[in-house]
Amino acid sequence: MSLCFLQYGRMRFVASLLLVLGLQGWGLQSLAQGDADKPNIVLILVDDLGFGDISVNGAEKIQTPNIDSIAADGANFSQFYASANICTPSRAGLLTGMYPVRTGLAHGVVTANDKRGLPKSLDTLATMLKRADYRSKMVGKWHLGNFPEYNPLDYGFDQFFGAPFSNDMKGFALYDGREKVQGPLDQSLLTSNYSKEAIDFIQDMAQEKAKSDVGAGSDAGKDENQPFFLFVSHNMPHIPLYASKAFQGRSKAGVYGDVVEELDWSVGEIIKTLKAHGFYDNTIIAFTSDNGPFFEGSVAGLKGGKGSTYEGAYRVPLVLSWPARLKGGKEIDAISMNIDLFPTFAEAAGLTIPEGDVDGKSLLAVVESNQAQHQFLYLFNNENVVSVRSQNWKYLTRSYYRRSIGDFSNFDVLPGFNRAYDLLFKMNDADGEQYSLAERHPEVLRKHKAELQRARKIFNAYRTRPEEKVFPERPAE
Amino acid sequence: MSLCFLQYGRMRFVASLLLVLGLQGWGLQSLAQGDADKPNIVLILVDDLGFGDISVNGAEKIQTPNIDSIAADGANFSQFYASANICTPSRAGLLTGMYPVRTGLAHGVVTANDKRGLPKSLDTLATMLKRADYRSKMVGKWHLGNFPEYNPLDYGFDQFFGAPFSNDMKGFALYDGREKVQGPLDQSLLTSNYSKEAIDFIQDMAQEKAKSDVGAGSDAGKDENQPFFLFVSHNMPHIPLYASKAFQGRSKAGVYGDVVEELDWSVGEIIKTLKAHGFYDNTIIAFTSDNGPFFEGSVAGLKGGKGSTYEGAYRVPLVLSWPARLKGGKEIDAISMNIDLFPTFAEAAGLTIPEGDVDGKSLLAVVESNQAQHQFLYLFNNENVVSVRSQNWKYLTRSYYRRSIGDFSNFDVLPGFNRAYDLLFKMNDADGEQYSLAERHPEVLRKHKAELQRARKIFNAYRTRPEEKVFPERPAE
Repeated sequence: MSLCFLQYGRMRFVASLLLVLGLQGWGLQSLAQGDADKPNIVLILVDDLGFGDISVNGAEKIQTPNIDSIAADGANFSQFYASANICTPSRAGLLTGMYPVRTGLAHGVVTANDKRGLPKSLDTLATMLKRADYRSKMVGKWHLGNFPEYNPLDYGFDQFFGAPFSNDMKGFALYDGREKVQGPLDQSLLTSNYSKEAIDFIQDMAQEKAKSDVGAGSDAGKDENQPFFLFVSHNMPHIPLYASKAFQGRSKAGVYGDVVEELDWSVGEIIKTLKAHGFYDNTIIAFTSDNGPFFEGSVAGLKGGKGSTYEGAYRVPLVLSWPARLKGGKEIDAISMNIDLFPTFAEAAGLTIPEGDVDGKSLLAVVESNQAQHQFLYLFNNENVVSVRSQNWKYLTRSYYRRSIGDFSNFDVLPGFNRAYDLLFKMNDADGEQYSLAERHPEVLRKHKAELQRARKIFNAYRTRPEEKVFPERPAE
Repeated sequence: MSLCFLQYGRMRFVASLLLVLGLQGWGLQSLAQGDADKPNIVLILVDDLGFGDISVNGAEKIQTPNIDSIAADGANFSQFYASANICTPSRAGLLTGMYPVRTGLAHGVVTANDKRGLPKSLDTLATMLKRADYRSKMVGKWHLGNFPEYNPLDYGFDQFFGAPFSNDMKGFALYDGREKVQGPLDQSLLTSNYSKEAIDFIQDMAQEKAKSDVGAGSDAGKDENQPFFLFVSHNMPHIPLYASKAFQGRSKAGVYGDVVEELDWSVGEIIKTLKAHGFYDNTIIAFTSDNGPFFEGSVAGLKGGKGSTYEGAYRVPLVLSWPARLKGGKEIDAISMNIDLFPTFAEAAGLTIPEGDVDGKSLLAVVESNQAQHQFLYLFNNENVVSVRSQNWKYLTRSYYRRSIGDFSNFDVLPGFNRAYDLLFKMNDADGEQYSLAERHPEVLRKHKAELQRARKIFNAYRTRPEEKVFPERPAE
């Protein structure tokens, strides 16, 4: 309980105090018997890919055999959520295991001259895995702080090659470590350049391993089989869309499809390299997207897309494999979220996380049992909890309409409404968010509304700005 | 050509001049050999119903046997568009046969204290059909001017029973003619009250017919079989949603489904009454919606909904029957729009419309041939043409993103974009608006972009306010 309090407190209020007390980071302990057992971890994140844009989720005009192969060798999650409907907060959640509002980066994205960055008091996947002795590299898009002081190298990564933000932002450039890469930037080469950097790292790790295998025992202070964490964060298929020459015109889904097929190729090259060096079996590979599709892309029949508050905004693919430990071919419909990857990787690395330090729950047991570890997931728009999802239901209380936000929970203050307009959707149902069953299931509604209020109370403590004004001040057109 | 000029000019510039010259209304001529041949016309408009919310378009949780029966006895249109993505302009288009921007009502909806109303210089379905000697009644929602001077009785309707605007607006009340109906308004009775008014009118028409049949020849100045036009404009399934007791809990789609099933019942009662009085065979029945679904409802896999600029905003059901003249069971995929109903009804009534006076094209030949009469349809958001639709393609150039509007045609001025972001979708394809094929079909793209520019030039002359500021001033998040 005290650790829990410390975690909550550390976030923004007592960070400096904790530094003074030498308590930086939570009390992670390596439980693994030997480093040789720790899996390598390859996390592949793409940008604005829709749930339905990979073959294994129904895409017909885009072929993604390599992404599909991760599902075949591991698990495919059908109810997996990004922790936000836009880029920066979703990434903040992924990297920290916490609901983004707890990182201070839940409002909008980090724009060109934005002074915000991910607080350094927080553990990231990289700093956490560092405690289990992982070597790490980040390749690709960061978007958790644009200025030099927010370089991924300052967040636990040993190496960084990539871009500070989205490929449509002013001053888009590549960095190798802290140095800007010289020369003109050809976006059609982004995906292949990132792939090369990823593969180089795996090959370097293979060389290190070969060296340490040969010289085992010669250097007592050095890990014999130091595991690695590779985070490949593609800028695509965010617009503007560019595929390299070899992929132009290949898909049946225009340039968007070409781009996704090149991303799939990149996944294939990484898998091939892992296999070539004997890493594959004991490597966790996770592939996901930061939010739903933007102006193109498939939501596989879901509603809305990036930036909205419907399913299409949050529901993203997750395929995850770890052949050494997890059986392949699993179809997982237990609800989960990208904040769950942090405790998943921690568990895999033999680390324990004090209760309350992260909001995510490890997925390892979920892959075995298909039992959700969350009773509720909270979906945010900026710093507002707009929806509560349980395994079978979703209660939605805010949605965009043209330039307004409709706050359904306040509809009872509008003329003509004698009650709130409650959207309660049955989720284990092909209809998704078409028809509310709020009046048919008052007890389910009551429970989810109460949970929303409870969640708002907790998370409102982390707001960085006041709540946005909503519908009642601007009636529907 | 001169008539054409006059029409365009009349709209707002020379209305008073034309009144002076006695040229009010266009030169409609009755071509019918005898009034007995003129069909009765029943136009049923519902509010915010999605394309996929009726069984004949794939709804499984809502049963609409009566609406379906119109398709069985006539035609079902799969590519039919509302003339706007929101209520008022869509209705202005439907009532006048013109793109709404030409009516001055294309921007937003008429809000509570809005001084706007449909210009009286314009012909409506009612004034047009009056020239062919139709008796007419409007039942239900108007929303083309809230103040007393914009009563439907001032637009050619002989009778009116209904509401000036949407059922969520302040001061929502029912009017019988010009008089406010006293007593509290129970919205759960709206649909049944409207139905009763519609049926009463048909029964009155039957009585008149019976009288004139008996007394034929006794009154030379009176039409023997005066045809009628009944416009039933339901307030539902716009929110707030209320079904009457008999329908509460009946559907598998919550209150929304109950409401739609009650609307279907209402359609059935009207059909039953028409049949009981021998009107059915020579009656045109058209059933459609004013725009796509709002927070609930099915777009049948299309993208977006009411207020957006994707298909789900504009694509609505149209089923249309006229047993005396049109074969049943037709599936029509020729593109068409609600502005086409005006010339359709005109042709059926034996009236001709001078070229250029309306933008719509009669659907009678379309039902026979399934050949589109439009080379292009223009989709508007407020007063902006945002999309050009041809039979096989759709070029989309503006879309909402959170609180911004993205103007894709200007994306080449944004950093990172070396060209406009062109969304060209193949429409005879299950994918709808998922993947742009702009780069695959440059000639199709060029043609549709040129058409958009041409349309904007024409329609910008009718603007009532400047163009909205778009994306380039507020970069994407």
